[in-house]
Amino acid sequence: MNPPGEIETRVRRLEDIEAIKKLKARYWRCVDRKLWDEMRDVFTEDATADYGPDIKLKGRQAIIDFLKGSLGADTVITSHVGQRPEIELTGESTATGMWWLNDYIVMQPNVRRRGYAYYEDEYVKQEGRWKKKSTRVVTVLEEWDMLKR
Amino acid sequence: MNPPGEIETRVRRLEDIEAIKKLKARYWRCVDRKLWDEMRDVFTEDATADYGPDIKLKGRQAIIDFLKGSLGADTVITSHVGQRPEIELTGESTATGMWWLNDYIVMQPNVRRRGYAYYEDEYVKQEGRWKKKSTRVVTVLEEWDMLKR
Amino acid sequence: MNPPGEIETRVRRLEDIEAIKKLKARYWRCVDRKLWDEMRDVFTEDATADYGPDIKLKGRQAIIDFLKGSLGADTVITSHVGQRPEIELTGESTATGMWWLNDYIVMQPNVRRRGYAYYEDEYVKQEGRWKKKSTRVVTVLEEWDMLKR
Repeated sequence: MNPPGEIETRVRRLEDIEAIKKLKARYWRCVDRKLWDEMRDVFTEDATADYGPDIKLKGRQAIIDFLKGSLGADTVITSHVGQRPEIELTGESTATGMWWLNDYIVMQPNVRRRGYAYYEDEYVKQEGRWKKKSTRVVTVLEEWDMLKR
Repeated sequence: MNPPGEIETRVRRLEDIEAIKKLKARYWRCVDRKLWDEMRDVFTEDATADYGPDIKLKGRQAIIDFLKGSLGADTVITSHVGQRPEIELTGESTATGMWWLNDYIVMQPNVRRRGYAYYEDEYVKQEGRWKKKSTRVVTVLEEWDMLKR
Repeated sequence: MNPPGEIETRVRRLEDIEAIKKLKARYWRCVDRKLWDEMRDVFTEDATADYGPDIKLKGRQAIIDFLKGSLGADTVITSHVGQRPEIELTGESTATGMWWLNDYIVMQPNVRRRGYAYYEDEYVKQEGRWKKKSTRVVTVLEEWDMLKR
């Protein structure tokens, strides 16, 4: 906590932590509101995503294609409850983050999935802006419902 | 990110962002714990609230009357999971905010509603304190259950 | 808001608030990921926990023993959605915090509990690190399901 050093450094660290939290909020907003163009700014070009044992993605384009392909249809509604940030600044332009997620995915008309997971992320600052460099989601519980109507 | 300028300005901006997040936490706490008197400090006197296509409210009193009227009864339990803040300071005493919400409303004995929504807010600083000037909730999914007992 | 005083004091206050939020995130992570050794750093040695009318605990060891005993089994999965922090610094090394929690506990194979609660905490800074000194959880709603399989 309270790192020693010049006051400007301490202020910059607080700004960096806030910027990284906002980056992550933006990521989930872009998913839940299907803002695939804005999503491009979230990731580095060479970003990687590990969304589970069978979903290892390389490169921003592959990540966005996957998200759009699996969640982008008008018949799909998603809600990501992302909280409990633990951001560690590991250098002037590198950081890690841990989060907890409850997500809810409705594939209309009748499939519903609830997921419970944690995130382990790496971030980098490029040209003054923080981006996701890698993201790893470990799902601890999944619940699927087939609704009868 | 990391705006240029004097260090005091940068610190004040961080304080403002924290104060706005805390204001929003207080708003939800006042709803879920039915603290209608304390709720008065959350809004400007001329605040507006857009809680959906049929619920457009003008003025702090109208907003609190609506919340108290619809959620204030002892038989109603509410839980607002509010997270993913994206606060933008747009001037020395103005700001905007986006949030994601999952809410759960139990109207005892047997009606339950789950809502999934995003908030778009405006805030202003009046006499050194941040307040909500306008709030807009866009619900992307609502689920209603009638429980059988 | 924006306390008067030297800039270093204001920066330290922002750092303290961030450290306390991170402490709380760590607490929930240690529960949900069953990290009982790491959990020791979260509490002061003389910490107290009030988890409800029948669960009043004294001392870090008693708290961890209780959490491990009730939630530590491999057949138990927990998810704590903790958000809406309202941190008040009450001195150079003391603070209070309020939070909102939705928790979900799955006792396999067939018992599920959803809880809706608020936290009222006290924190102290010891040797430069914030710890939980007391925690009180007030549950406003509990839902239990016995699943049929």
